[in-house]
Amino acid sequence: MLKWMLVFVPIAIALEYLAPQSHLLIFVAAAIAILPLAAWLGRATEQLADRSGEGVGGLLNATFGNAAELIIALAALRAGLHDVVKATIVGSIVGNILLVLGAAMLAGGMRHQEQRFNESAGRAQATMLTLAAIALVIPAAYAALVGEINPGGGKTLSISISLVLLAVYAAFLLFSLWTHADSFRGVDATENVAHSDPWPLGQAIAVLAAATVAIAWLSEILVGAIEPTAHELGLSNIFVGVFIVAILGNAAEHATAITAALKNRMDLSLSIAIGSSVQVALFVAPLLVLASLVVGPHPMDLLFGKGLVLAVLLAVLITGQVAGDGRSNWLKGVQLLAVYLILGLAFFLIPQV
Amino acid sequence: MLKWMLVFVPIAIALEYLAPQSHLLIFVAAAIAILPLAAWLGRATEQLADRSGEGVGGLLNATFGNAAELIIALAALRAGLHDVVKATIVGSIVGNILLVLGAAMLAGGMRHQEQRFNESAGRAQATMLTLAAIALVIPAAYAALVGEINPGGGKTLSISISLVLLAVYAAFLLFSLWTHADSFRGVDATENVAHSDPWPLGQAIAVLAAATVAIAWLSEILVGAIEPTAHELGLSNIFVGVFIVAILGNAAEHATAITAALKNRMDLSLSIAIGSSVQVALFVAPLLVLASLVVGPHPMDLLFGKGLVLAVLLAVLITGQVAGDGRSNWLKGVQLLAVYLILGLAFFLIPQV
Amino acid sequence: MLKWMLVFVPIAIALEYLAPQSHLLIFVAAAIAILPLAAWLGRATEQLADRSGEGVGGLLNATFGNAAELIIALAALRAGLHDVVKATIVGSIVGNILLVLGAAMLAGGMRHQEQRFNESAGRAQATMLTLAAIALVIPAAYAALVGEINPGGGKTLSISISLVLLAVYAAFLLFSLWTHADSFRGVDATENVAHSDPWPLGQAIAVLAAATVAIAWLSEILVGAIEPTAHELGLSNIFVGVFIVAILGNAAEHATAITAALKNRMDLSLSIAIGSSVQVALFVAPLLVLASLVVGPHPMDLLFGKGLVLAVLLAVLITGQVAGDGRSNWLKGVQLLAVYLILGLAFFLIPQV
Repeated sequence: MLKWMLVFVPIAIALEYLAPQSHLLIFVAAAIAILPLAAWLGRATEQLADRSGEGVGGLLNATFGNAAELIIALAALRAGLHDVVKATIVGSIVGNILLVLGAAMLAGGMRHQEQRFNESAGRAQATMLTLAAIALVIPAAYAALVGEINPGGGKTLSISISLVLLAVYAAFLLFSLWTHADSFRGVDATENVAHSDPWPLGQAIAVLAAATVAIAWLSEILVGAIEPTAHELGLSNIFVGVFIVAILGNAAEHATAITAALKNRMDLSLSIAIGSSVQVALFVAPLLVLASLVVGPHPMDLLFGKGLVLAVLLAVLITGQVAGDGRSNWLKGVQLLAVYLILGLAFFLIPQV
Repeated sequence: MLKWMLVFVPIAIALEYLAPQSHLLIFVAAAIAILPLAAWLGRATEQLADRSGEGVGGLLNATFGNAAELIIALAALRAGLHDVVKATIVGSIVGNILLVLGAAMLAGGMRHQEQRFNESAGRAQATMLTLAAIALVIPAAYAALVGEINPGGGKTLSISISLVLLAVYAAFLLFSLWTHADSFRGVDATENVAHSDPWPLGQAIAVLAAATVAIAWLSEILVGAIEPTAHELGLSNIFVGVFIVAILGNAAEHATAITAALKNRMDLSLSIAIGSSVQVALFVAPLLVLASLVVGPHPMDLLFGKGLVLAVLLAVLITGQVAGDGRSNWLKGVQLLAVYLILGLAFFLIPQV
Repeated sequence: MLKWMLVFVPIAIALEYLAPQSHLLIFVAAAIAILPLAAWLGRATEQLADRSGEGVGGLLNATFGNAAELIIALAALRAGLHDVVKATIVGSIVGNILLVLGAAMLAGGMRHQEQRFNESAGRAQATMLTLAAIALVIPAAYAALVGEINPGGGKTLSISISLVLLAVYAAFLLFSLWTHADSFRGVDATENVAHSDPWPLGQAIAVLAAATVAIAWLSEILVGAIEPTAHELGLSNIFVGVFIVAILGNAAEHATAITAALKNRMDLSLSIAIGSSVQVALFVAPLLVLASLVVGPHPMDLLFGKGLVLAVLLAVLITGQVAGDGRSNWLKGVQLLAVYLILGLAFFLIPQV
């Protein structure tokens, strides 16, 4: 089944170059083409995760999952589309913790009565997200309270906070991969066996790399097609950025996190979903702010719109409650998905400007 | 003592029809008359709870306790008094978690050094409340940020969110009564014996039904008397709705939750207090929004005033901290009551318009 | 080394009286002079803590640490400098939980893989801070929503909330020192021995008192020098109040909390850091509001600026996550310090008015 969907990879590419005005067709073809690639990426990642322990495996997965997003965002940055970049960042943070984690907890919870995950790792990641939310709230509050009398302050603040976030992210990697790698290792790591025959290490890495590159290429085609398609459908750019791009950009994480949850490997699932949000918030976003100093027509700041900041704040709030006790069940999945749905409705009803 | 207070039931009804202008007298008579009825309701509920386990017993209690509020709110809806309905909804949510749970924890904690309750159930309910708070924040934020350029969007958003909340509430019932009924059963369920001779099942149901109907009737009399009384006393409608109506409307839950806490049945106490808030927020409120499409002069939305939304948000914030670790002591009761008192002071000082 | 720094005590005092215009010199001298005094205060407190158990010891420490701040604030109140008082209160709350606790967790975590502390005590104190944050949010919200149509309401609200906070603080002392003193005692209390030869009780008290008085005197000199110094350096009063005064005013807590953390006495460390914030928020702040009714040119209210309220709210939010599970590691320290740094950057960039 999945293999057949790979046929849409050349179709999407062909349409992009032969019929560049067929936005809707390109959009659908690229979206379908991404799914099997995401599945392959998931399998390759799981092969590597089996070798390296849950924590590192999850981190690997999040890195490769977000590589595509980073490439897309850099392209948008070059075009000066800061609003699209910011909407995609927020959509990725919110989508990973509400949609991906919610779907994983629901799927896993329908097969297992109660699933356990490493409580300390869950808490550390939830605190990281709180830190990220604070880093978005402060520039917005600064702009609202003193931005008018000191416009230059906001730019300095954005760059300074970006450097702080990158330093904290480096500390987080040091913590989870080195000084406290043991406590980050999942509770279920030893209980599971690989679901299929182990691949040679070279094959796993090759598949992972190839799938990542192909997703990246298709994602750019997809993003290019989304805006005109959305315009025809009467949707706002912010809704498109936050929800449509994010769902597709996170398809890889999505597939792997659900597969892991179904196999009762909640630690892998959690570190993919929350870890991916953490990486976007504390690594991709500040990196883009700094990159914008040399790339693109003008620098991008960390000043996100009030609606975007609120979405992150509310998503982080409920994630802290859900991920804090090391237990998962299907109701938690429903709760996360409900928040995602409510946010989606509100953004969907933003009128097209 | 309580039996004697039943004499105020006919007095309140007689005053309502014979001296309809004696608002203060009607108010006091109805308020006193409700107390013994609430006590009977509590006893009947406990009889049923002894038979059916803590979780279901608490749910039964919350259902019967909120039936009165639903009837009152529908009457106010028919009269087009949306502000009163919204104030009562918020007052009920806030009152149950701050006043009822606070008083129960304080009373229970003065008799017992430390009380335990089912941590998972407490967390699941606290997360439900967070979801409810988010469902109130989003429409308010939508109205503030894009309401002016798209007024129709707010109405669509209210109806959509109401449907999401009802679906989540249905999922919550499925979870707590069926798929995870075991984990919702209280830690103290087997340690306690009934406090009095068991009643026949028929008697318990009959008392419960009769008390519910009588409370409902008296509550309507009471509500009719409150506004003119409040006007004479110089209080704002919002204070009356949030605090006075809520305290009386939740008298039944109040009495039962404290009685349960004193008997060291914190699971019952918690499921009454928080469960009642959850039910109002995720069942009564969205039901009223949908009902207003056919009942009353014009539809009601989920757009609550900023002060009301903030009250819910702060109440939910502190409840999450207090209910998250499965332990209760008298200081937690004092903390919840202090927040209630502070909110009460702020609403009390809102000038009468 | 520390002993030699005591030479700056007479230097600071001499400069204050002989060269009162040398603000920068006075500032530096007083700041250096405070450090050895803080260290002596820490030693004396630890001597007393060894005798009286962690909880009481921490409380003792917080009391003596905040005595200096109370004296400074009263002096500022007499001069009618309400903005400085409020900035110092917020700086003290935020600084103790972010800077002091953050530095203690980082320092302790670099020597110990994982440190444990009493989870119940941590949660009770975090809930106290949430209550304090709510007590600051409500007057600000009241002023924003109905302040214009009822200006007198804000004053009544400030005095009422102050009385509620003092009552809750009294309840907290009753709880932690009497009814639940056992559960507040640290998990590590019996495992540690005094780090040095025990002092006679009289000596410990004498050193503690002398150091407190000297710190108080020097702090006043320091505060007097800060504003003109800051003006020369182009900093805003609010940044000076929230960050510079707070760091120096909390130097005593800072030194003791880090020393305790290094010795793996996290309960003492936590009760100093969070306990000090709790005391400032629930005891010092309301006391100052009530004192301002008789001291100073005009009464002070609890209406803090939006930026200050937000700082407290965000600090409390992340503290609740960090202190909720009874475990500490160096990453948590980094996370708290990062929030402090981000807040500091934002306040630093407030333009001088």
